[in-house]
Amino acid sequence: MKLIVNKDKLNSSIQQVSKAISSRTTIQILGGIKVDAHTQGITLTASDTDISIQSTIPPQDGDTELFTIEQEGAVVLPAKFFVDIIRKLPEDTVEIEVKDGFQTMIRSGLSEIQLVGMDAEEYPLLPSMDVKEMVMMQSDLLKTMIRQTILAVSTQESTPILTGVLFNIQEEHIKLIATDRHRLATREASIRNDEGIDFNNIVISGKNLNELQKLLPDQDTIIEIVRADNQVLFNLGTVQFFTRVLDGIYPDTSKIIPQSYKTEMVVPAKPFLSAMDRVNLLSREERTNIVKMATLEDGKIEISSSSSELGRITEQLDLPSISGEPLKISFNSRYMLDALKTIDSEWIHLGFTGAMSPIIVKPKDETFQLHLILPYRTTG
Amino acid sequence: MKLIVNKDKLNSSIQQVSKAISSRTTIQILGGIKVDAHTQGITLTASDTDISIQSTIPPQDGDTELFTIEQEGAVVLPAKFFVDIIRKLPEDTVEIEVKDGFQTMIRSGLSEIQLVGMDAEEYPLLPSMDVKEMVMMQSDLLKTMIRQTILAVSTQESTPILTGVLFNIQEEHIKLIATDRHRLATREASIRNDEGIDFNNIVISGKNLNELQKLLPDQDTIIEIVRADNQVLFNLGTVQFFTRVLDGIYPDTSKIIPQSYKTEMVVPAKPFLSAMDRVNLLSREERTNIVKMATLEDGKIEISSSSSELGRITEQLDLPSISGEPLKISFNSRYMLDALKTIDSEWIHLGFTGAMSPIIVKPKDETFQLHLILPYRTTG
Repeated sequence: MKLIVNKDKLNSSIQQVSKAISSRTTIQILGGIKVDAHTQGITLTASDTDISIQSTIPPQDGDTELFTIEQEGAVVLPAKFFVDIIRKLPEDTVEIEVKDGFQTMIRSGLSEIQLVGMDAEEYPLLPSMDVKEMVMMQSDLLKTMIRQTILAVSTQESTPILTGVLFNIQEEHIKLIATDRHRLATREASIRNDEGIDFNNIVISGKNLNELQKLLPDQDTIIEIVRADNQVLFNLGTVQFFTRVLDGIYPDTSKIIPQSYKTEMVVPAKPFLSAMDRVNLLSREERTNIVKMATLEDGKIEISSSSSELGRITEQLDLPSISGEPLKISFNSRYMLDALKTIDSEWIHLGFTGAMSPIIVKPKDETFQLHLILPYRTTG
Repeated sequence: MKLIVNKDKLNSSIQQVSKAISSRTTIQILGGIKVDAHTQGITLTASDTDISIQSTIPPQDGDTELFTIEQEGAVVLPAKFFVDIIRKLPEDTVEIEVKDGFQTMIRSGLSEIQLVGMDAEEYPLLPSMDVKEMVMMQSDLLKTMIRQTILAVSTQESTPILTGVLFNIQEEHIKLIATDRHRLATREASIRNDEGIDFNNIVISGKNLNELQKLLPDQDTIIEIVRADNQVLFNLGTVQFFTRVLDGIYPDTSKIIPQSYKTEMVVPAKPFLSAMDRVNLLSREERTNIVKMATLEDGKIEISSSSSELGRITEQLDLPSISGEPLKISFNSRYMLDALKTIDSEWIHLGFTGAMSPIIVKPKDETFQLHLILPYRTTG
């Protein structure tokens, strides 16, 4: 292998795939990045077996040539040093030459680096995907949907299936669900499903979706989601993101969402978020995050929290609409804050079915997004 | 005490003094911020006994009134919650009212906070300073001088005196020195010393100078440095920064700086810094940070580092000037990188007195700044 490549393009591809490198891997070759150089493109691959990321540098970007290849080939280079050094090289281009025994020379200006490479033949193969098992959607929509549900995944390794987000796809409809048994977040949307594919019980770890989220382009880009046995491929164009699917059956959450309310209110999103932010400041000092919410006489609500050591905070809010029974309820301020931060709406609908029953948080007049928060059982 | 104060001004004063709050204090009242409200100004004080910071809000900023006081007084408020909540209050002004038993009400819009205050009479007094024991200098110059020496302070608590920077002031001249026994950094400058004060063996902990550095204004401001028995006060105008002086005698470092060289060279600052940055990337993987430097035949030098596991990096540099004996030397790449980052000059002068003797790093043609680095003893 011998080539000259644009430094910035090589660097951005390295940064993209390096998210799949685990520093704790015991498999030596997975501590490396595989470089495949062909005249059609230079492809970089990294994997920690849970996720695998591929990024391809095309021969041209518009009129600009991004690389020239003197000799095609492949090599695996140790990620540790490779990931940082390319960015710091002095010139705009980098020469890479693989010699006997996978010794690799990297040259740029008066810098010369000799890396101990590894045999690309020994690098594990990525799963082969049937491109027919595929749906298409907007990149920024998927990014938003992940952001609106990932907050509710469990961090408890004792229930591994709940550490993921459930992807349900049926006909032209996608729904994401996450729950840690104390709260639940769902988001639905339309999707392009030409092949009529069903996704059932596809659960992807929150940790992996967090990495995917960083790679999803914000612009108006269509991405493909391809399903295989125990893998899902997110095809972002020049970047391919493969993730393992979590084992196990995701619990049925459909029955815990109340269909009618005893108390309903519409709250202004920004003032409610900032009041909750202040109350949370004090409640987190107590480590319980307990906040109390009560309806007042004149269309107002009061939110409060107290700390035996520090003091007390009370917030009042004027509501445009409040109906049903008077209410006194306690809940986790952190959960409410997390939920509110994902709602991109001027008004928020809160629904209550009693002091011991789930609280529903939704954008007003919309049904595509929903948060459920279980209240605290408190005395008095 | 009862007052209404501009929220942003109160917040910035809180942020300034809060750097002196230690989360690990066992003295309850030092977990608080003292608020002294007088018509002449509202003064906030925080202290961890090692450093104390005072910030004063004046009655006016130009034509804008910054506070109105209904009743003067003082209280100590728990920093934990107070530091974060003020910034998040909904309105531009904040009302603070101290009631019986130091219960303090904070109001802004529909937010009401009740804080468990403490008796300001119990707050420790700051040292009284004799304002005659005072020198004056530019704030940004002091900031630069700290930045150029603090890198060399020791992190070893076994030699406490070396964890500080030595301040020497004699006549119209100030010199800062820091050393961890492996490297040394000095910086000198002129100072205004109307009272003819001498500072001898005044050593201030690097940790404290790091906090001071964040408070020093960048603009063209004159600050005062006031000396007392075991304290120094940096008077920055509306902010007063008190720091304890380290106990012990600072070692005499004057004799270790060589007066003549066996090899001298002038290197271009930016290319040398970036070459050293690349070499350091590999050498730090070996944890020893060893880099080798050698003069070549044709007015060039070569810098290299190798890792048994990863490979090798070699950098060459063309020098405009090199004289004396040929040289092969090994040193710590981190120390060189730290030193180079503090030199604001296009060309750097390197002086060597042999492979086992100190390396001197200076801006070319200048004597006000100097770094000394001890080489590694290596075989071959």
